[in-house]
Amino acid sequence: MNEVLKNIYGRASVRRYKPDKVPEKDVREIIKAGFHAANGMNRQALEFAVLENKDAIKKYNRKAILLYADMIRAAGHSNPMVENMVKNPEADIFHDAPMLVFVFANPSAVTPVEDGSLAVGNMMLAAHSMGYGTCFIGFAAGLGNDKEFRNELNVPEGHRYLACMTLGKPDGSMGTHSRSEIKILSWVK
Amino acid sequence: MNEVLKNIYGRASVRRYKPDKVPEKDVREIIKAGFHAANGMNRQALEFAVLENKDAIKKYNRKAILLYADMIRAAGHSNPMVENMVKNPEADIFHDAPMLVFVFANPSAVTPVEDGSLAVGNMMLAAHSMGYGTCFIGFAAGLGNDKEFRNELNVPEGHRYLACMTLGKPDGSMGTHSRSEIKILSWVK
Repeated sequence: MNEVLKNIYGRASVRRYKPDKVPEKDVREIIKAGFHAANGMNRQALEFAVLENKDAIKKYNRKAILLYADMIRAAGHSNPMVENMVKNPEADIFHDAPMLVFVFANPSAVTPVEDGSLAVGNMMLAAHSMGYGTCFIGFAAGLGNDKEFRNELNVPEGHRYLACMTLGKPDGSMGTHSRSEIKILSWVK
Repeated sequence: MNEVLKNIYGRASVRRYKPDKVPEKDVREIIKAGFHAANGMNRQALEFAVLENKDAIKKYNRKAILLYADMIRAAGHSNPMVENMVKNPEADIFHDAPMLVFVFANPSAVTPVEDGSLAVGNMMLAAHSMGYGTCFIGFAAGLGNDKEFRNELNVPEGHRYLACMTLGKPDGSMGTHSRSEIKILSWVK
């Protein structure tokens, strides 16, 4: 098996991190790998932000949980896991990661969600190949429309929030990652 | 630079293919790599379909173009590139690729578009590492609700269309792939 496949099969989402930050040149390499992903009509509309201030991460963790709960409630759903996070002041959607990388898109993007996800995918694989761990944090989505967050991260009006990824040195081994059987619906020859 | 980064920077969307099909074991490896991508709450909801029948590909190419044009018009947009494809019976959104891989999600998916895009990203990188070319075909999206297409590909009702990817041996070199400067909006330390 080649190194690329080994890296794909060896990657798993990391939810325990060492406190060490990732050196800036490695963060830039990882973001560059993300920016190099395929993107709709080659608009290259993605933009990135790095958050590594511990107090800010803590503040936005709490804010994100409350905003996510609001989103769930507004959609008329109930989600016990989210309601438990609201009640638990220790709940941490960022898994105590030392750094967060956020992805946005300027308005020229034609397929922003796809583009942002492809970029996160590349960043996760690049980071893993360099010995770092990552996790795509869907629970952070509520921050996308939060004024304080957007101001602090210098996000221009009209530019869309797409994704949040934790980044750091894994604390402990990745463990194995079992997958259910792959479902091939059809193979039309 | 490690092999994973080299593979990420060396990949580019391929729009010219040799007629040769990809051996089934390689297609299955590529799909497996896609299925191994990160996915929301580990629902593992993705499903795949392979289409390699030339007549069917030709039929759905034309259908996809007309359906995409309908989507654009219904959204009140005008898109000269799409209108030109409608007028040109030779227009080929699949770039004469010998095989197409489609991605769907069952209703348990919590972040279907992100999951599907992450899977395509893994498949593009796995395929490139194995000497194959790919292209994410956004123009095929209209097929997602087409009854004939869904029946032919055995897609259960309520399962969502997510993506179409061409797959084959590249005809000619990949060429270089220039990227604009990466925009880092902020780096909060």
